[in-house]
This record gives sequence, C-alpha cells and structure tokens, in this order.
Amino acid sequence: MLILGVDPGTVVTGFGIVKYEKNQLTYIHSGIIRTPKTKEMPPRLEAIYSELDKIIKLYKPTQFAIETAFYNKNVQAVLKIGYVRGISLLLAQQCKLDISEYSPREIKKSVVGNGGASKEQVQFMIKKLMNLKNDFKTLDESDAVAIAICHAFKKDSLSHKSGSWKKFVDANPHKIIQ
Amino acid sequence: MLILGVDPGTVVTGFGIVKYEKNQLTYIHSGIIRTPKTKEMPPRLEAIYSELDKIIKLYKPTQFAIETAFYNKNVQAVLKIGYVRGISLLLAQQCKLDISEYSPREIKKSVVGNGGASKEQVQFMIKKLMNLKNDFKTLDESDAVAIAICHAFKKDSLSHKSGSWKKFVDANPHKIIQ
Repeated sequence: MLILGVDPGTVVTGFGIVKYEKNQLTYIHSGIIRTPKTKEMPPRLEAIYSELDKIIKLYKPTQFAIETAFYNKNVQAVLKIGYVRGISLLLAQQCKLDISEYSPREIKKSVVGNGGASKEQVQFMIKKLMNLKNDFKTLDESDAVAIAICHAFKKDSLSHKSGSWKKFVDANPHKIIQ
Repeated sequence: MLILGVDPGTVVTGFGIVKYEKNQLTYIHSGIIRTPKTKEMPPRLEAIYSELDKIIKLYKPTQFAIETAFYNKNVQAVLKIGYVRGISLLLAQQCKLDISEYSPREIKKSVVGNGGASKEQVQFMIKKLMNLKNDFKTLDESDAVAIAICHAFKKDSLSHKSGSWKKFVDANPHKIIQ
C-alpha cells in the first residue's frame, strides 16, 4: 500500500510518501510546502491544497495519514491549524483516500518505541528504518514521513490481529516447539 | 454586484445571496447546508464544500463575505470552525471571488445600527430592508444574509469615501442651501 503522511501547518506543511508491502518499508518521496507569511490566508490555503493535490495525482497513494490536532492555548494558532487540517481532510476525502489520524505520542511510539521521543530521534529512526543517506530538509518533512510509517505499522498490526492462531502457526512453522 | 454571505458551521452552514445595485438591495437566494453530526468530519467538509461550490456555479457571485471567527474558549469548537472557514475561504479563492471578513459586531451594527443587537432583531431588519414576506428557516440563514448586506453597505460607503465633495454636490443638488 502507498501512504501519504501529512504534517499540516500554515507556514510549512510537510508531506511524505511511503510504500509498505510484505513487511518492507520503502521511501518514495517527501518534501515541504512553504507559503509566505506575508500573504493572506485564502491564497496560502489554495497553494497548499493545490500542491497536495498535484502530489496525490502524481503518486496515487490510497492511504492518507495525518496528525491529530495539538491543543494549543493560543486560539489563533488552533484556528490556523484548523484551516490547514480542514482543507487537507477535504482533499483526501475528495480523492477517496482512506483517512486515518494519529496523535503525536502514538506516532513517536510507533516509530521510535517511545512516545516522548524528540523530533531528532524520530528523524534518526526513519533514516535507519528505510536506509536513507540524505538528510531531510526540515523536521516537518521527517514528521510527515513518520506519520506515514506509523500508519503502515498500525495497519499491519491490525491485519495481524484479525488473523487466527491457525494462520499464525501456518505462517510461522519455525516457532512450533517440536 | 452579487454577494455571497456565508455563516460557517460544521453542523449548519448558512448562505445568502444578495444583489446590490444603485443603492438597491435585492434578495436573491438563501438557505442552509446541514451535515449529520453522526458522520465523520471529512465527508461533512466535502458536503459543505460541494454545496457551496454548486451555489457559486449557479448564481455566479463576485463577492464573498464571511464572519470573522469568534473566540470560543472551547478549543475543540475553534478547531471545527477552523475546518469550515478553511474550506470556505479555499473555495472562494479558487473561484476568484473578492473575499471580505466582518466581525459579528460590525455586521449587526451595519444592518441594525447596534452592534449588540440580537439575532432576531437582525432577522427582522433584513426582512424590512428587502421587503421579504417569508420567514427564514434558521438564524444561520438570516445571519448569512446579514453578512452579505453588511458587505454591500461597507463597499458602498467605501466607494462614497473615495469620491470628492464635487461629486457629492453633483449627486445631491437638493442638499445645497440656495
């Protein structure tokens, strides 16, 4: 399955595309959409929507994963996050992607094994998991890839859960103590 | 000019279309978009966007007016308002409408003459201003019409401001004391 992870923000929106097949994670593409702070909100929202739309049309992911909103005390900041999350969810729905949301803790725990990990630790682990040599441009970009990886792992563990003991034994004959 | 006023909400979004020409306000159309609370957010956002899009394609307004966000202490409510405002602003921008925002106080003051007027007073005044016989279905609908009327009056006073005394005298010969 091909997963698009999005880390929404009015100034910088990170995106990452990851393939997950046969327990194998493959890095496909990632980047950031930066919109000038000096511009008004409507053209910035249009730019983010249009860039994400191009990425979806080009890579054709079937899965869309996004971070749940953080609860900032700054109402103005919450409102702005609402704008970008709103247009991202709208686009994912319009493109009929399978939408999932994960909390920052869940994402870190799933990628690093520790819900309190730093963004740098997350970035380090992503590079290890997918054998990447190059650095990410920003933490927004690696965060978006982390969201996609988290979705891959969650979907995977769900599909395992739905199996039976018989299926597990059939798939893991070496685990049977003779 | 043809103005679309929008009162955004995740449950009920009101919209109203008003024509303003030669100091004359004409009611064109208004209504509400209701999305079921039981549905998840992405399909609800898609429904609101798609309904507003149909209205814009059908009536072809050139002006888009929306209420500025209210600052609720409930962060969850602010986030949801952010979603609907975000997709409304996105659509208005994509349709190249001229976008304006007005505060609830400004809207009430411009329609009723009192920034602290009740929604019922606003509705009463709208009906009077445009000679409407029928009631509005909900206050969200009359609020959206009020937003459009506010925009008409503001644009009008701006265009007067840019004029000169000479223009004013030419336009109002009866005001000259002979």
